[in-house]
Parts: sequence; structure tokens; C-alpha cells
Amino acid sequence: MATVKLWSDAEVDKVPRLKAVFDDIHATRKSTFVNNFWRGLCNDPALLERTWLSIKTVMAPGALDPLTKELIYIAVSTVNGCSYCVHSHTAAARGKGLTEAQHSELMAVIGMASETNSLLTAMQIPVDPEFLV
Amino acid sequence: MATVKLWSDAEVDKVPRLKAVFDDIHATRKSTFVNNFWRGLCNDPALLERTWLSIKTVMAPGALDPLTKELIYIAVSTVNGCSYCVHSHTAAARGKGLTEAQHSELMAVIGMASETNSLLTAMQIPVDPEFLV
Amino acid sequence: MATVKLWSDAEVDKVPRLKAVFDDIHATRKSTFVNNFWRGLCNDPALLERTWLSIKTVMAPGALDPLTKELIYIAVSTVNGCSYCVHSHTAAARGKGLTEAQHSELMAVIGMASETNSLLTAMQIPVDPEFLV
Amino acid sequence: MATVKLWSDAEVDKVPRLKAVFDDIHATRKSTFVNNFWRGLCNDPALLERTWLSIKTVMAPGALDPLTKELIYIAVSTVNGCSYCVHSHTAAARGKGLTEAQHSELMAVIGMASETNSLLTAMQIPVDPEFLV
Amino acid sequence: MATVKLWSDAEVDKVPRLKAVFDDIHATRKSTFVNNFWRGLCNDPALLERTWLSIKTVMAPGALDPLTKELIYIAVSTVNGCSYCVHSHTAAARGKGLTEAQHSELMAVIGMASETNSLLTAMQIPVDPEFLV
Amino acid sequence: MATVKLWSDAEVDKVPRLKAVFDDIHATRKSTFVNNFWRGLCNDPALLERTWLSIKTVMAPGALDPLTKELIYIAVSTVNGCSYCVHSHTAAARGKGLTEAQHSELMAVIGMASETNSLLTAMQIPVDPEFLV
Repeated sequence: MATVKLWSDAEVDKVPRLKAVFDDIHATRKSTFVNNFWRGLCNDPALLERTWLSIKTVMAPGALDPLTKELIYIAVSTVNGCSYCVHSHTAAARGKGLTEAQHSELMAVIGMASETNSLLTAMQIPVDPEFLV
Repeated sequence: MATVKLWSDAEVDKVPRLKAVFDDIHATRKSTFVNNFWRGLCNDPALLERTWLSIKTVMAPGALDPLTKELIYIAVSTVNGCSYCVHSHTAAARGKGLTEAQHSELMAVIGMASETNSLLTAMQIPVDPEFLV
Repeated sequence: MATVKLWSDAEVDKVPRLKAVFDDIHATRKSTFVNNFWRGLCNDPALLERTWLSIKTVMAPGALDPLTKELIYIAVSTVNGCSYCVHSHTAAARGKGLTEAQHSELMAVIGMASETNSLLTAMQIPVDPEFLV
Repeated sequence: MATVKLWSDAEVDKVPRLKAVFDDIHATRKSTFVNNFWRGLCNDPALLERTWLSIKTVMAPGALDPLTKELIYIAVSTVNGCSYCVHSHTAAARGKGLTEAQHSELMAVIGMASETNSLLTAMQIPVDPEFLV
Repeated sequence: MATVKLWSDAEVDKVPRLKAVFDDIHATRKSTFVNNFWRGLCNDPALLERTWLSIKTVMAPGALDPLTKELIYIAVSTVNGCSYCVHSHTAAARGKGLTEAQHSELMAVIGMASETNSLLTAMQIPVDPEFLV
Repeated sequence: MATVKLWSDAEVDKVPRLKAVFDDIHATRKSTFVNNFWRGLCNDPALLERTWLSIKTVMAPGALDPLTKELIYIAVSTVNGCSYCVHSHTAAARGKGLTEAQHSELMAVIGMASETNSLLTAMQIPVDPEFLV
């Protein structure tokens, strides 16, 4: 149960500013499915527009390919404990070709990094000067 | 200042079990530089051995290439707030060919994911059934 | 499902030390509704007393008004990933007059701060001397 | 020591796209001081532009006043463990009139929320149906 | 709903490498119950083997007794916001003799530490030289 | 550099309400050393009194011994990324008899728990019904 209203397609269709974003989501993703995140953001059209535009730009192919970006997104979402984002971006990664073998290695790296992060913090190891050049 | 002793090369050389790990680090990385993390782990030879073996295995080329793994490591370390790990793995990624353009896109994805993670949590949006298949 | 027993009103009424706190919650909030958090704390009467007294003091009107304090509480709870607290303090904020427009701006600030927090950490930017005066 | 280059004013002045953002920061803040965060973002002009525009929009007066927004920003930054952001936004809040008494209450609410967040998570208390309406 | 397949006993039994780990879990815990975590790790036999071996080693009696290790595990899991781990390790601690009084004190310490952690970070208090010796 | 003033002994001595707390710290710890945390809290006498009273109560011997409580405190502080608290409570634990072997096992458990926490979250494993009884 969300702390905000989730807007239905019928409600979105009545507000041109929201409808424009949903139309662009449809066109960009080549699908009429719009997940709940965007329906919650409809309560603030400016935030919806800004967030969609940023996501569309940031996740587009560039110096990093879209699948690699999804792996990074899953890693961040895991550590931030965002269940929704882990589910949605794992689904997105699978849609972009993530294999089981790649997913397994992603799990292993996330786990390993979390372990050594906490070891470093618990031991308060100073950064080597070699890393500061 | 660490909460544990950081072992010097001279001290490590006197303990065969520690020296064996350091020798393998030298051989694997083709360098005599061993960063402080491993020097702190010397206080617990079993933890040193286990951690080095895991890192060596997990970060080796596989279904994901080593540079992609470093990007995931940086992402996790950032969210966990591990300054040491951000420094050391950014340096490692650069050593594995990370370009400035790739680093910029990594920053953007980490930032974007953190923003949407907190929006989702603040709005408590339920996971769409489509993501649970 | 909690990891501790949640005490019913009937059970609380049999223990004077617990009943005294619940009576004060009723009187302070002008309601007989006591949410599950307090029912879980009943397993440790001293912790229940101390926590209630602290909350009552900290959240009372002072240099900051009660609604502002609820916004801060929601922000902290979001980043700590406490679903219960996000729900309960969003409800509390609404009870203290939070408008939809204010809630939207709260979302935007929480999201923005989370994004820039992770950017700063990923880039390890040193604090400007101007901020340390 | 940052993991990215921090751009000097002289370097920024040579790149029109960067200079335009810095000019807007000067004009908006009525000061020629530009803190390190923006100098690190100069490595990615698109990220610099997008982040500055978002911050300028989000932190402007609206349904919440600018000081309240800074308090929320400090709360988020504290829990995310971003030392830079705690320093910079505490300084910003002071510049917007934060009193010592308000700062003390901010500290108390952040501390109290963090305590109860962890108690709720450790006890895994289910959300009351009353909060889900 | 997990993002990975959870393997049934029948499926595990068909893969010798997985079965060997499950057999060792049965023998070590003197029970045929194997919780979902291990069923999810079956997707990556190497990760399953490594994780089980590490857990078995780390949680065994040593300089710290097994119950104390479970308390530390619960504390870490709480702050990391891992609902699964809070449930499973609270159950494990109860199985190792955790009393209600001990659980209450664990809650109190976790809450107190989280409160002072955030106060320290919000105030950015420098570490006393006395602690750095 | 703190975001608040750190009070010197001379300044504390002039304010009876602060001096009373410092006197109790001296008496309880049998030492005239008062670490910076308490000097920062002097800006809010009520918060100082409440925090000191809580810490004194919570960390006293009870169903858990003081050293075990320090281990839990270090674990929480590590995951919360509070460098100050990791330093101060590791020092406190050593003062209460923490051995090197115990410290090493504490490190191992913290690391292991952080690893499995992130694996569970990344895989979104549902809690076994057996843990919910």
C-alpha cells in the first residue's frame, strides 16, 4: 500500500501534462505497460517529467551499454534496500539479455563488495597514498 | 589510523602462511604493491586467506568482464559509504581501462539509482505483479 | 510477523507499569489507538518508558514546529529503509496538516539529496575550507 | 583527494557550457564562491547542467520554505553518511537563518528517528492497518 | 517472490555438487530443514559452496561463543535492513538459547547505537586523539 | 571539524547542568577523560542529559555482559558507517578486555553478515514460514 495515490491510465489521460510523459514512456519502451513508480510520481507532474527525462537520458546507450547500466542499478538498489527497484531492474536487465551466469556473477560481486566494505570500515584502514594520485 | 595493526612486508615475510598469500597477490597482480586492506587482514590469517581466495575468484574474467565487475564494486562501495573501497576500486577500474566517459556515466547511474531508490521507499510503491513472474 | 510478541490492550492492562505508559499515550494523542510499535516495546518496560518519554519530548513543539519534525522523521526513515516508520510518520504528518504539495516537495528533496549524496561519495570530493569555519 | 578532477575557475571559463552554469550559480546565490561539488561535476557537462537545474528547482521556495528543505537535506545526508553534504547543507541552513535551538532539535529528531527505525526493523513490527488507509 | 529460482530438494538431489552441500547442512545442523537462502544460492554452485563453507567456519565456536555471534549477525542485519536475515538469525539465536531478557537488551543496544551514530555524523565530531593510539 | 561547538572543561564548569553530567561521567568511568561526543552534546543540555542517562543504563551489565554490548555497538556503528563510533567503541571494548582473537572473529562475523545481507536482498528471498512462528 503506497503512501501516495497511484494514478490509473484513465486518470492520466485526463491530464495532458501527465499523458505526454506516459506517451513518451510507451514510445520509448515500445510497450503500453507503465509500472507503478511512474503512477506514483503523477502526483507531482514536474517531478514526473524531470525523473523520466533523467532516466531516459542516463540509461540510454553511451560509453556504457544499457545492460551494464542495469547491473549498476541493481547493485545500488540492493545496498539501498529498495525491494521495488531490485525487482524492476532485475526484470529490466533480463529484458536486455542478462543471462543466468551473468546474474550469478553479479550476485557474487555485490556480496563480496559488501563484505569487504564492512571489513574496511570496521578496521578503519587508511587509504593508501598510491590510490590518491 | 586503523583499529588494527597494519603488517609491514618484513613482518609478513616471517610468517609463512601470510607470506604465501602475499606471494600470490604479487603473482596475480604482477606487482609488488600490496595495499593496506591486506595488511590489516594479516591479523587473522584464516580471514586473509579466505578473503583473498574469494576476491581472486569473484573478480576474475567470467560471464562478466573484469571492468564491469569493478563498476559494480564501485557502485556497492559508494552506497555503503566505504571511502577506502571507492578509492581503491576506482583506481583498479582505471587500471583496467576505465575511460573518463565511462566514469561519468557510472556516476550518473549511481546518482539516478539512489534518487529513485529513495523516492520509491518514501512513496512505498508496491511491486507490480508483472515483475514477480 | 514480528520477532517479538505484540501485547494486546487486555495484556497491557494487567501490568501497571505498561498501563501507565499506554494511558499517557492515550492522553497525549487524545485517542485510544496505540500502534504496534508500542505493543512490541511492552516486552521491555524500561525501554518502553524511555522511548515514549523521549519521543514525547523530542516531537513536541519547540524551535521547530511538529509538522517540520515529522518531515525530518520521514526523511530519516526513508533512508534507513524503515517501511513501518515511513507509513506511520506519513500518517502522522497528514494528521498534522501535511498538504499534497508539501508531500511532493518532501519527496523531491529526499530524492535530490540521495542523488547528490551518492555523487559526492562516488567522487570523494573534499569538503571546502569555507564550510569548516 | 577526489577520484575526479576538480575544475578551477580558469579552466571553467574556457568551456562555454560549463561557464554558463557557473554564471547561473553566481547569479542565483549572489556570490562568486562555487563549492567543490560543482567543480567535480564539470567532468560531465550534461550531468552538471541537469544537477544544477534540479537543485535550483527543488530547493526554491514552494509549499515548503527553503530552510525546512535544508533541514530535510541534512537529515538525508546524515543517514547516507555523506560528510561533505552534512557540512555544506549545515552551512547553507545557517546562511538561511538556522538558529542554534533549531539545530539542536534537528539533531534530536534525527537521533530519535534513527533509534526507532532500528528498533522497528529489529523487531520486524508489521504496519498497522490504520496506517494503510 | 524471489528474483531467482528456489531449488526444491528433488531438484537438488539430482545435482551431486549441490547435494553435497545440502548433506553437509543437514549433518552440521542435525536437521533436514534447509532454509530458502541456500535454495536460492543453488543457481550458482560455486557461490553456494563458498558461502556455506564460510558461514560454517565463521559461526563455529571460537574466541566468541555461537550465541554472541548470532547477536552480532542480528545487529548487522538490522542496520542493513535485511528482513530475511533478522528473522532467520533471531530464530537461530533463540535456538542457541537467547532469552527474552537478552533479546530486550540487544534491542536497546542496537537502538542506542543507531541513535548516537546519527548524532555523531550529523555533528561531524572529530575522533579524539586518545582513540587513535 | 565539527558542525557544532565542542565545549572545553572550563566552559562546562560554568554551567551547573552540564557540569553535573560531566561529573557523573567522571565518576562512572573512573576517569577525567571525556570524549568529544559529550562536548558536542553540550550545546543541548537536555539532549546531553537524556543521551548520557540512556547510554549509562543500556551499556550497564545485565542479561548481556558489557563486552558483548560493545561488540554489538561496533557492529551497528560499522554498518552505519560511523567512523567516530567504530574508533571509540573499539577502544572501549579493548578497555573491557577484548582480545585480538575476539576482535578477529568480530570482523569475520560483520563481514559475513554484510555479504549474506546483500545476497538475500539482491535475490529477494522470501522468509521461510518456519521463521515466522
